Amino acid sequence: MTTNKQIHLVSRPSGEPTTGNFKLVEAPVPTLQDGQVLVRNHFLSLDPYMRGRMNDAKSYAQPQPLNEVMGGGTVGEVVESRNPAFKVGDKVVGMGGWQQYHVVSAEQRGALRVVDTTHIPLSAYLGAVGMPGVTAWYGLVKIIEPKAGQTVVVSAASGAVGTAVGQLAKVRGARAVGIAGGPDKCAYVVNELGFDACIDYKQHKDAKSLSAALKEACPDGVDGYFENVGGMVLDAVMLRANAFSRIALCGMISGYNGEPIPMAAPQLLLTNRMRLEGFIVSEHMEVWPEALKELGTLVATGKLKYRESVAQGIEAAPEAFLGLLKGRNFGKQLVKLI
Amino acid sequence: MTTNKQIHLVSRPSGEPTTGNFKLVEAPVPTLQDGQVLVRNHFLSLDPYMRGRMNDAKSYAQPQPLNEVMGGGTVGEVVESRNPAFKVGDKVVGMGGWQQYHVVSAEQRGALRVVDTTHIPLSAYLGAVGMPGVTAWYGLVKIIEPKAGQTVVVSAASGAVGTAVGQLAKVRGARAVGIAGGPDKCAYVVNELGFDACIDYKQHKDAKSLSAALKEACPDGVDGYFENVGGMVLDAVMLRANAFSRIALCGMISGYNGEPIPMAAPQLLLTNRMRLEGFIVSEHMEVWPEALKELGTLVATGKLKYRESVAQGIEAAPEAFLGLLKGRNFGKQLVKLI
Repeated sequence: MTTNKQIHLVSRPSGEPTTGNFKLVEAPVPTLQDGQVLVRNHFLSLDPYMRGRMNDAKSYAQPQPLNEVMGGGTVGEVVESRNPAFKVGDKVVGMGGWQQYHVVSAEQRGALRVVDTTHIPLSAYLGAVGMPGVTAWYGLVKIIEPKAGQTVVVSAASGAVGTAVGQLAKVRGARAVGIAGGPDKCAYVVNELGFDACIDYKQHKDAKSLSAALKEACPDGVDGYFENVGGMVLDAVMLRANAFSRIALCGMISGYNGEPIPMAAPQLLLTNRMRLEGFIVSEHMEVWPEALKELGTLVATGKLKYRESVAQGIEAAPEAFLGLLKGRNFGKQLVKLI
Repeated sequence: MTTNKQIHLVSRPSGEPTTGNFKLVEAPVPTLQDGQVLVRNHFLSLDPYMRGRMNDAKSYAQPQPLNEVMGGGTVGEVVESRNPAFKVGDKVVGMGGWQQYHVVSAEQRGALRVVDTTHIPLSAYLGAVGMPGVTAWYGLVKIIEPKAGQTVVVSAASGAVGTAVGQLAKVRGARAVGIAGGPDKCAYVVNELGFDACIDYKQHKDAKSLSAALKEACPDGVDGYFENVGGMVLDAVMLRANAFSRIALCGMISGYNGEPIPMAAPQLLLTNRMRLEGFIVSEHMEVWPEALKELGTLVATGKLKYRESVAQGIEAAPEAFLGLLKGRNFGKQLVKLI
């Protein structure tokens, strides 16, 4: 019988999570019932939102139950099927979780989507042509609504979401300015992705200093800000915000371990008549088809580039996830399972 | 020759303003040119936004120039006219400033509007049927967009804007909860205006305590918040915000003297997928006709009530204005000039 290695969450972190919160478990691959499909997961997606699910606190995502397989997006291949809608060899995207195999039943409509890998690599369906890409698309197109010539700033610019935000902004004729951690990431988003500028936040010890750098990178101010990190970075961008600017609030990773991350000067939201909107892409399923169409076309034609950090083997998932929370990844963080 | 008493701004405050920032000046009433109208001001409107104009700093409002008449809304009567569009005796609304008389030229289109005082008292055009009323209407109708059964909270609830917010929310079938300073103001908005509840923020020393009181007053959470004060009050309301709730950011009077007013937990904007929008009603002139129609009808039929704090004589304007900034007014703050 084939073994299915899984990672379970076995305890909740207080503050910073550790590998001790996770446990490797071996389970048998289940025998299929009528209507079920067995998927072998090729890649597992690691995403910042998973940190929130490790807590028991009320948030937009349901807490991850203890002693169960960590949830998460996966791409893989159908290796056995008792469902006429799927055949062995189909490449599929789903929510397979942190494990090598998963079973999908017929009643879980929409839980598994067959994808075409002729022009788009399978792993991209977890990144630029998946949830992170649509997240970028929604925040940029539906909240920031950039006009040609306007300036869009994005934090965590070299990450799975940030890279897409900047490139989608460029497609719309906007100026794209990134904020990222370290000279390599900054060079990448400017030289490889075509951002107009990128600021290394690690060179700035406070919002005032970062804001001065932003002034240089954004001579006409900031019209739209796509926020992934919060804290000092948000304060700095707000100091450069134009009248009627928009903030798409997608993540605030700097506070995910419970650190206080006050907004220093909320009065700027008033004096600049800003609009700020928090969102979760899974609550806007109506935009996915339109977004995926644009993202897929751009990736297939080489106009939307991305980078992946790939950890090897399910055993590496916890460590890779902790690295993601510390910004050690460079681009989309994946775990390769085969 | 008639004398025109005026109040000039003669210095800018550092921190809290004082009466010394103002000066009483006597000027002659000018002789009219062709096309001009002379208005005798009956009431002068005092509004929190004027505090911002006392500073030299960049803000949405142009700074008030030094050694000139303080700007401000007025209602009055045409006492002399060399413009066929206005006749002596017309009751008019305008931006006459802190003075007894003002002259309007023909080229200042829209600077003077004739109003009907058959069913609406003249002073109401500076309050419920004027800028404060439209401010309430815009933030409530265009940003908060309350549905019947939802809960709307408003701070500075007994003020010119707050009283209208709560009553307009009730007209739309929402639950209206006020936050005000002191038992008299709270009793007024509940007993006279029909708010469902009102919390005296002076009974609470921090956001946690105020938030606990809000929990009781808003058993189903907060769907919309109309913000006039900022600081601890905003923090408290955010702790009770529902998913997809909206904040109309109209004022943050607690920080108008330069006090830091950080927002303690901006991550709530994300976890609750909130929308926050700062606005200035003068930038949304397109809604004024619709808003004034509803506000005028409600006032004329007694369904929109209001209260006025009336200071006597132009000399009293500076002191009354400083009192407004400290919340000493009860309802719309006016200065009666005749």
